[in-house]
Amino acid sequence: MSFVPAEKLSVNDLNQHAVHADYAVRGSIPMRAEQLHAQIINDPGSLPFDKIITANIGNPQQVGQKPLTFIRQVLSILEYPNILNDPELLEKLVQLGVYQRDVIERARKMLDSIGGSVGAYSASQGVLGFRQTVADFINKRDGCKQLASPNDIFLTGGASSAVHYLLSILCSGPEFGVLIPIPQYPLYTATLTLSNSTAIPYYLKEHTSWSTNTKEIEINIKESMANGVKPVAIVIINPGNPTGAILSESDLADIIRISAKYGIAIIADEVYQENIFPGFEFHSMRKVLLNLQSEFPGTYDNVQLASLHSTSKGFIGECGQRGGYMELIGFKDEVIAIVLKLASISICSVVTGQALMDLVTCPPQPGDASYKLDQEERNKIKQDLMFRADRLYGLFTSLEGVECQRPQGAMYLFPKLILPDKAIEKALQLEIPPDEYYCRELLDATGICTVPGSGFGQDPGTYHLRTTFLVPGTEWIERWREFHQQFYERFS
Amino acid sequence: MSFVPAEKLSVNDLNQHAVHADYAVRGSIPMRAEQLHAQIINDPGSLPFDKIITANIGNPQQVGQKPLTFIRQVLSILEYPNILNDPELLEKLVQLGVYQRDVIERARKMLDSIGGSVGAYSASQGVLGFRQTVADFINKRDGCKQLASPNDIFLTGGASSAVHYLLSILCSGPEFGVLIPIPQYPLYTATLTLSNSTAIPYYLKEHTSWSTNTKEIEINIKESMANGVKPVAIVIINPGNPTGAILSESDLADIIRISAKYGIAIIADEVYQENIFPGFEFHSMRKVLLNLQSEFPGTYDNVQLASLHSTSKGFIGECGQRGGYMELIGFKDEVIAIVLKLASISICSVVTGQALMDLVTCPPQPGDASYKLDQEERNKIKQDLMFRADRLYGLFTSLEGVECQRPQGAMYLFPKLILPDKAIEKALQLEIPPDEYYCRELLDATGICTVPGSGFGQDPGTYHLRTTFLVPGTEWIERWREFHQQFYERFS
Repeated sequence: MSFVPAEKLSVNDLNQHAVHADYAVRGSIPMRAEQLHAQIINDPGSLPFDKIITANIGNPQQVGQKPLTFIRQVLSILEYPNILNDPELLEKLVQLGVYQRDVIERARKMLDSIGGSVGAYSASQGVLGFRQTVADFINKRDGCKQLASPNDIFLTGGASSAVHYLLSILCSGPEFGVLIPIPQYPLYTATLTLSNSTAIPYYLKEHTSWSTNTKEIEINIKESMANGVKPVAIVIINPGNPTGAILSESDLADIIRISAKYGIAIIADEVYQENIFPGFEFHSMRKVLLNLQSEFPGTYDNVQLASLHSTSKGFIGECGQRGGYMELIGFKDEVIAIVLKLASISICSVVTGQALMDLVTCPPQPGDASYKLDQEERNKIKQDLMFRADRLYGLFTSLEGVECQRPQGAMYLFPKLILPDKAIEKALQLEIPPDEYYCRELLDATGICTVPGSGFGQDPGTYHLRTTFLVPGTEWIERWREFHQQFYERFS
Repeated sequence: MSFVPAEKLSVNDLNQHAVHADYAVRGSIPMRAEQLHAQIINDPGSLPFDKIITANIGNPQQVGQKPLTFIRQVLSILEYPNILNDPELLEKLVQLGVYQRDVIERARKMLDSIGGSVGAYSASQGVLGFRQTVADFINKRDGCKQLASPNDIFLTGGASSAVHYLLSILCSGPEFGVLIPIPQYPLYTATLTLSNSTAIPYYLKEHTSWSTNTKEIEINIKESMANGVKPVAIVIINPGNPTGAILSESDLADIIRISAKYGIAIIADEVYQENIFPGFEFHSMRKVLLNLQSEFPGTYDNVQLASLHSTSKGFIGECGQRGGYMELIGFKDEVIAIVLKLASISICSVVTGQALMDLVTCPPQPGDASYKLDQEERNKIKQDLMFRADRLYGLFTSLEGVECQRPQGAMYLFPKLILPDKAIEKALQLEIPPDEYYCRELLDATGICTVPGSGFGQDPGTYHLRTTFLVPGTEWIERWREFHQQFYERFS
C-alpha cells in the first residue's frame, strides 16, 4: 500500500459546537493562574506573591476545608470491607478510635444495599437503598403529604451530569430553547452550545437581591416562540450561583405558574440548599409546587420539575467524589424511560459517590456515637464560611466603585464593579471584557484568582466578578483592598 | 394569572436522537431479567430457578470476584487519611494486619500528588502524578524509544466517558462518520446516534478469529465518502468486545496504514489488554504505530491515535469506581485544547477513580510487603477466568447448532447460533430478532441472562449471543446444555 499521508485534523474539522462552548470557571483567568502557579514553583520569588488564592471555584477541600469525619470513616470501610468479617479486629479498631460503632453499622447496612462491593456497577439509576435515603431526606425537608419516591430519583455523577442528561434529552437543535438566568453558572450555556440548542436569557434583578421577574420571563418566552424557538425548560439556580442569593417563595411560585401555563419543564439547581445563612430561608421548588397543587387542585398537575442536588456543596464540600441526585417530578413515564436509557449508556455513576449522597442526606442522629463530633465539625465549617463572607462583604461595601448584595448563602459573592472609564478603555484596547481586565490585574498583583462577571453573563454595561468565600485567613482580603485602591487611583 | 394548563412533554417532544439510541447490554433481555429477579423475591418458588445468572455484563464484582487487597487498602486510607497523622496508631494498624507498610507509603505519596484530599476537584485532565504513573506503565508495556508523556494522558470516568469526549469532538452531524467494527460494543453506536452522526460499519471475519479486512474497510471508506459522509475516526476494540478475540500485529498495522492514508483518527479501545490467555499476545496500537514510524520515517507521522484503558476490566474489575484514561498521540495541540475544554465543563473525573488508575498501572513490586498476596490474588482470578472460559467453550463446541471461536482473553464468548428454521419463524411471528428469542427462552427457562448478537451487530443472516465467563460455578453451564438440547428438539 503506497500512499500520500493525509492532513491531520485541525480545529476546523471538529464539531464546531464543541469548539465554541465556553466555561469561564476554568477559563482564561484560572488558566493564567495555573501558569503563575507553575512560575512560583519553577522560579520562586519572581512574582509579588508566593501562592495563588483560588477564589475562582467552589472547591472547599482544595483550600483546606476538612472532610467530615463520620462520612470519611464510612467510605473508608466501604473501600476495605474485609475488616467487617473479623469481630475481634473491629472491636480493637473501635477501641483505638479508628472507627465509631455507628460508622461500622452504617457501613454494613450500605454494603448490603450495594450488594457487597463498591467495585461493581450498580443499577443505572443508582443503588435503590440510597435512593430511598434521598427520598426520606426530601420528605423530612419539605414536610409535604405527598411522599417522594426512590423511583423518581436518579443518582448522578455530581449535578453536572444530571444537567447533561436533562439538556441532552430536552434539546437537539436551535429550535429548542432553555430559559437561563443571567448571571448563570456557565455549565448551562456550555451544555446548550454543545447540543447546538438555544439559551434564552432572562435577567435577575440585582437591586432586589437577584430576584426573578415573571413579566419579563413571559416576554422572553413569547419573543422566543415568535422567533421559532420553543422554550422547553427553565433553569432556576437557588441559592444562586454566582449570585449567592436565595429566591423568595413567591418568586418560585411565579416560575411554577409559567411552567404550568406554557408546559415548560423546571430544572431547579438546588445544590447550595444547605448553605443558608441565619435570617434567610431556603424553599425547595418541590415544596412550593406541592403546596400550590394542594391549594389549587388540577391547575398545577402538569408541572414537570427536575430538582438537582450534589455532595460537592453544602458543608460537606466533597467535590472530587462526584456524588449527586436528581428527582424527577411530574414527568411522563415515557420521558423518564428515556432518561433511564441515557443513564444506562454511561452504565452507572461512581458507587462511592452514590454512597456519599446517602451519607449526606442521612447524617448521624442524636444518640449516635458520631453525632457530637459531626455537629462540631459542621458548625465550625458554617462559622468559618459566615466569618469570611462577612469580611469579604465588609471589604466590598467599603471599596470605592463596588456595590455588593448582602451574603445569604452558597459560597459566593458577586460584587458589581463600577469601573473607571480609563480602565474600560484600557480593556477595550486589549480586546477583553473590562471585568476580565480587572480580574487579570488582581491576579497578577496579588495571586487572587476570581472569575469575571462576563463569564456568567450580566446586564449589558455592568461589570462584576465572582469570588468564593472559602479561602482561609483574611490576609488575602487585605491585599485585595490594597490592589483595588491602587487600581482605581491608576485609572482615575 | 389565569391560564389553561399546557400539555406535558411526551416522547415526541424530546430529542429524537436520544429517543432512538440503543444500548443492548442493558436492553430488553437484561430488563426482563430484572423483572424476573423481582418476581423471585416477591413470589419465591414461582420460577424454575432461584436466581438470575447475570452473564450479560462484564461486572466481575457483582458476581463475587473479590477486589485486590492492596488496591482497596490504599483507597481506604485515601478516604480516611487522618490515621496518617498518628505514627503510634499506624504502627498498631500494621501490627493488626489492617494495612501493610507499602500501602501506607503509597497512600502518602498519592495524597501528596492529589494535594491532600480526594474530596477536592482535581485538574480537569486528572492528577498530574497519576498521569505520570500511567505514562510509566505505557513505557514499560511498549518498550519504545519514544516516551509517553503525562501531558497526552487524560484521566476519565471509565472508558465510556473518554468515548463520549472523543465522539463529541469529532462528530456533529450525519455528514461525520465513524468506522465501527461489527460486532461492536453498543456504546459506540449509541453515542453516535445521540450526536446524530453516522456509524460506518465494517465487518470482522468470524472464521479467522474475528480479524479485520483492510480491503473491505477501504471500500467502506470510499462508499461512505461517495455518499457524502466523511469518515473521521475508526474504532478498534482489542481485545474484542463482544468477540473476546485479539487482533494480530499485521491487522493493527493495516489499520494504521488506512489511518495515515485517509487522515482518519484511530480510537483504540484497549480496556481488556490485561485479560490475555496463555498462548496469545496483546499488541498495543501505540507500539505498532511507533514501530512503523521508526521503520518508515515520515510516512506515519500524521497518524492520530486515542488509546483507552479502564479500571473496570483487567483482573481488577473495579467497574463501580469509574476509573479510566485515554492517551492522545499525534493530535494537533489545538485539538487537544478542545478535549481539555470539554473535560473542564464536567470539571473532573472522580478522584478515587483516578487514584485507582494509578494503582492499577503500578501494582506492588517484588520486595513490597503486599507483593506476595497481590500476586496470589491475581493468579487466582486469572485461573478462575480461564477455567470458566474453557468450560463454556467446551459447552458450545459440544452443542448442536453452535459454533464458537477459541477464547483468547477479555471476559466474553460470542458463539454463533445456527438456529432451527422453526425457531426463526417463531421469532419472526413475535417480531423480535431470532437470537433475542433464543436468549429470552434461555432466560425464562434457566435464569441465565445474556445479550443477543443483534444488540452488537452481526453478519446479516447470522445469529449469536454474548456471554461473560465471570459467573462462578459450573452448574449454570450444565443447565444451559439442558435448555439448549430441549430448545433444538422443540424446533427440529
